[in-house]
Amino acid sequence: MFIMDVDKYNSLVKDLKEILGDIWVVEEKAAIERYLCDETAPPVRPPPSTKVVVVKPGSTEEVAKVLKLANKYNVPVYPRGGGTGLVGGAIPTKPGIILSLERLVNICIDVDNMVAEVEAGVTLGKLIEEVEKANLMFPPHPGDEGATIGGLIACNAGGARAVRTGVMRNYVLGIEVVLPNGDILRLGCKTIKNNMGYNLAHLFIGSEGILGVITKAYLRLYPRWNYTATIVLPFNDRVSAFRTAKKILHSGLSPLAIEYFDRKVIEASAKHLGLTWPVSEGDAFLMLILAEALEDVIYLELEYIDKLARSEGSLEPVVAQREDEQKTLLKIRSEIYSALKDKTYDILDTTVPIGLIDDFIKGLINIEKKYDIWLPAYGHVGDGNIHVHVPKHGSSSETLDKVIDEIYDLAIRLGGTITGEHGIGFIRRKYVRKILGDEWINLMKSIKHIVDPNNILNPNKVIPD
Amino acid sequence: MFIMDVDKYNSLVKDLKEILGDIWVVEEKAAIERYLCDETAPPVRPPPSTKVVVVKPGSTEEVAKVLKLANKYNVPVYPRGGGTGLVGGAIPTKPGIILSLERLVNICIDVDNMVAEVEAGVTLGKLIEEVEKANLMFPPHPGDEGATIGGLIACNAGGARAVRTGVMRNYVLGIEVVLPNGDILRLGCKTIKNNMGYNLAHLFIGSEGILGVITKAYLRLYPRWNYTATIVLPFNDRVSAFRTAKKILHSGLSPLAIEYFDRKVIEASAKHLGLTWPVSEGDAFLMLILAEALEDVIYLELEYIDKLARSEGSLEPVVAQREDEQKTLLKIRSEIYSALKDKTYDILDTTVPIGLIDDFIKGLINIEKKYDIWLPAYGHVGDGNIHVHVPKHGSSSETLDKVIDEIYDLAIRLGGTITGEHGIGFIRRKYVRKILGDEWINLMKSIKHIVDPNNILNPNKVIPD
Repeated sequence: MFIMDVDKYNSLVKDLKEILGDIWVVEEKAAIERYLCDETAPPVRPPPSTKVVVVKPGSTEEVAKVLKLANKYNVPVYPRGGGTGLVGGAIPTKPGIILSLERLVNICIDVDNMVAEVEAGVTLGKLIEEVEKANLMFPPHPGDEGATIGGLIACNAGGARAVRTGVMRNYVLGIEVVLPNGDILRLGCKTIKNNMGYNLAHLFIGSEGILGVITKAYLRLYPRWNYTATIVLPFNDRVSAFRTAKKILHSGLSPLAIEYFDRKVIEASAKHLGLTWPVSEGDAFLMLILAEALEDVIYLELEYIDKLARSEGSLEPVVAQREDEQKTLLKIRSEIYSALKDKTYDILDTTVPIGLIDDFIKGLINIEKKYDIWLPAYGHVGDGNIHVHVPKHGSSSETLDKVIDEIYDLAIRLGGTITGEHGIGFIRRKYVRKILGDEWINLMKSIKHIVDPNNILNPNKVIPD
Repeated sequence: MFIMDVDKYNSLVKDLKEILGDIWVVEEKAAIERYLCDETAPPVRPPPSTKVVVVKPGSTEEVAKVLKLANKYNVPVYPRGGGTGLVGGAIPTKPGIILSLERLVNICIDVDNMVAEVEAGVTLGKLIEEVEKANLMFPPHPGDEGATIGGLIACNAGGARAVRTGVMRNYVLGIEVVLPNGDILRLGCKTIKNNMGYNLAHLFIGSEGILGVITKAYLRLYPRWNYTATIVLPFNDRVSAFRTAKKILHSGLSPLAIEYFDRKVIEASAKHLGLTWPVSEGDAFLMLILAEALEDVIYLELEYIDKLARSEGSLEPVVAQREDEQKTLLKIRSEIYSALKDKTYDILDTTVPIGLIDDFIKGLINIEKKYDIWLPAYGHVGDGNIHVHVPKHGSSSETLDKVIDEIYDLAIRLGGTITGEHGIGFIRRKYVRKILGDEWINLMKSIKHIVDPNNILNPNKVIPD
């Protein structure tokens, strides 16, 4: 129960049940458990308040009613999607209401207009399934398929394909969002271009649930790529791998993804999955995914890349065109985080300009030496977004926080940013002032104040005190 | 001079000259003339106030000082780029200061990171020139190359390539913006991904100069496409043309542009240029531009499109691969607006979902019949953005306003929008409530109020009263 007297709490729960029906207001401890955490690495994850009630509205209008009630009782509200965030953004850090969008699962694929009308609780996996049934494609793939559309938009999710397809923001044609006061805003429509009014939708995209609750979206779809290939380029050294990546990026070819990892990291993931990494040569790898409408175009691209890579010192490339082979390679790449998770203190998503990735890795190696620590680094070399694991190690959390601090300073020194994908949430608030000045913080606070004067929506997130 | 006493006016001009130097504060009527209008069609263009002073700051800091002074004197400020807008957004509709960004023309191409650092006054033409020298590419092409970067970002410009490359918003990695109170905000960096703070840059992109003055930007660049081809597909009837366009869009091919026009419109433009439209067959045309890194890919695409178009009833396609031939075709397409301008009452940029363009054109034909009027319609069939000219005709402006009203209602009925590219500016404010409700207008007003409490920046634009 909240920090409020029992009568007030009982009155709130009674009102919530009146709006939603008894079964959609959950108070039982066992049933609430799974709403208290997300995928943030446990050592840095904030402890949740257990004084919470979980509500599951069945419509936008019910979301609005819950928010109005929360204002009446002055109680925090924590919107919740798939719980796949990595910065504690969905964790109820104060007593309050967890507002789960899990019942908003309608999805409609408008094939002719190539638009998906999706409610907030639909998972990325379900979206992909429905879109593919319609022989269309949702181009970005922001990681965990358990993430929900509401969360993906609220956090402007990225993923490996950003080099070609951009991030979530680029696919959102319109949203329906409930403001903290219960007003419902419908922004945008099913058109690719829309300059009708300055685009308030983009204020909510990436706002991490502090400005409004996204309940529905129009997402732009594309025709399905009929042909794909995955190519692994092995190198003896990291420098050649990065030089090759840069040449590919400058060639004008447009691979769906250009990923980098080293042998130690990728073999850890393969072992975790009970698999073997199928590339015996090399210590540093680029993995490229090609996707095109015409099969012969794939062959032309493979030929071009093969020639370019060999001239840069690549060892024997491994090409997978069978779907199962491609899936295995991607699976091993995708599970690096899971494989290392138990040993992880925090996972970072530092991002630097694409020409400076090698400088970033060099800087990381210096930090490794200074602290005698292994910093597994891998990721989206095509868009400068490098995931760095800071392992638990034998070190104290003070030391590990110093390591994180140095990595962030390194990224900033190179003109980069602390977070390319994961956002600020709870755990990165203390770093905001490293990048953003008082003007930004004041404007953020003013905007937050006009939409949420009682500060009920996801309080103590994103904006530093 | 302003609606203020002579002493106050003299004092303001003295202060402006102190900040900027005498020669950058322009009062002479003849020198001011060209700052009073933009490309809005004359019959709907608002009359400018001539009680204005033009200032030309040479740095972001000077822009900030001018804005602080404007607050002190409580005088409107009209930011001005290339003056290529079509909705009166840059026109000084009240006495005040015209703030021209023409002296902010620094440009630096960061080849390694594929980013252009550009000041607000740089023209699109100059950007393209510098980018091409570096063997890179700025993918979108939002029309008039006299437009400046500040204006293109402030208005979230679109253009024919949006089908493949998206609009300006998708290329802005960071901006520097001066708030009306003189605070300078620096948002974003040279990275492709950035989730550090909810993205305030996107609040200013598309805000049409009412929230802040954009002084600088980081723009994402791409490698240059080495090979291009332009193909004109002639059809006997419009229906076949649109059906073909839809099939191409659904094929997974990604042309740089898919344009539609009919013979009457394109021949008017050719005649205006003293040229001949080189395609003798057909009455309805699709013009596709292909652009790829590998030459053979172009041939594969041409072959595919040729086959597809013929199966849909296309007459003999005309393919141009020589640069001069391609330029001529594009020139004729680009000058339709100029060719029709003298006879134009207003030019619209209605946008509908891509699957409903044919319904939109059918609706237009009904309006043509009802009012016995020719409504030249052409444009970006690849992204649903159709330009409709409403000609002066013999009709009264009341009748022509009714025609416009019906066209807007038609677009809205099809789930589209009034403006895909041009924005609201001054002349479309009266239509805002057709689409956006009180919640939107109130939130806009609140945001405007917190950044610009004295309402000095581009007043009576965008937001309806």
